[in-house]
Amino acid sequence: MAHEGISPQEIEALCQTPDPSTRDFMFQQTMYRIKDPRKSIPFYTGVLGMTLLKQLHFPEMKFSLFFMGYENAGEIPSDEATRTAWAMTRKATLELTYNWGTESDDSSYHNGNSDPRGFGHIGILVRNVDEACARFEQQGVKFIKRPNDGKMKGLAFIQDPDGYWIEIFTSNVV
Amino acid sequence: MAHEGISPQEIEALCQTPDPSTRDFMFQQTMYRIKDPRKSIPFYTGVLGMTLLKQLHFPEMKFSLFFMGYENAGEIPSDEATRTAWAMTRKATLELTYNWGTESDDSSYHNGNSDPRGFGHIGILVRNVDEACARFEQQGVKFIKRPNDGKMKGLAFIQDPDGYWIEIFTSNVV
Repeated sequence: MAHEGISPQEIEALCQTPDPSTRDFMFQQTMYRIKDPRKSIPFYTGVLGMTLLKQLHFPEMKFSLFFMGYENAGEIPSDEATRTAWAMTRKATLELTYNWGTESDDSSYHNGNSDPRGFGHIGILVRNVDEACARFEQQGVKFIKRPNDGKMKGLAFIQDPDGYWIEIFTSNVV
Repeated sequence: MAHEGISPQEIEALCQTPDPSTRDFMFQQTMYRIKDPRKSIPFYTGVLGMTLLKQLHFPEMKFSLFFMGYENAGEIPSDEATRTAWAMTRKATLELTYNWGTESDDSSYHNGNSDPRGFGHIGILVRNVDEACARFEQQGVKFIKRPNDGKMKGLAFIQDPDGYWIEIFTSNVV
């Protein structure tokens, strides 16, 4: 079937002017589930350089949340209640949900890139893709696509411990 | 099985100090697939108040990308190449992937919250959850959880046209 997609003009026409009441809205978090924080926390801090902004534990419901992001660790408030409010108002955080016990059962989470598809990836902007990926190689990170693989040169896809895809790119890649 | 999760102290011990080479890393994007931009673009602009930062069309591979985010539309560069670089360096963007033709086939995307689970949601911080949700009600938005439903009062989950979950919350909810 020859499908023509949609024209840029039609897309522009579909855009609505943001309502004034949405002026303070912030894209604060992206949440996905992790099987084992003993693997994920070292990955997101040690490999990707994120900081643990806040951890929250819910014993009654047997799950924990870890908010990760690129913030200066020196700015983390020492008071825990203040820290929570601070973490929840940082832009672009990754919320990792850990349901207790998943690390020792045989379940695994779906990364969205095989059927049934949906979620695709998160993307980390870096200054130099080759340098970043050389370091990831040394750290034993799994690659879906290295910078020189395939048609789209200069960008890479790596996988986190659960298999979620993470794009590594610079601003001049497209 | 009584599972105790993981202690806050063990989590802190798992955190590694960010490598200096990651200092410029930015959590730039979260990508998921959409079935029909004629539904999604009005939703993310008209309901959630995002702005279309950049659209990219790839006729050879028959897909389009729409980068959405909370930026001032007046700051969008008029030159398209400059606009691309600008959009790709904004923090916290939502990258909507449209594979041409999906709007007229019977496929649908998986939102990650039924088996097989994985991705959970994106989260939008708002000033007033009740006011935001009253407006969403008027706009006919689907709710997974209204602010007063369930145990966790004061936060809501709505669904986008593909069924992806979007948390609506304020900083003092936890």
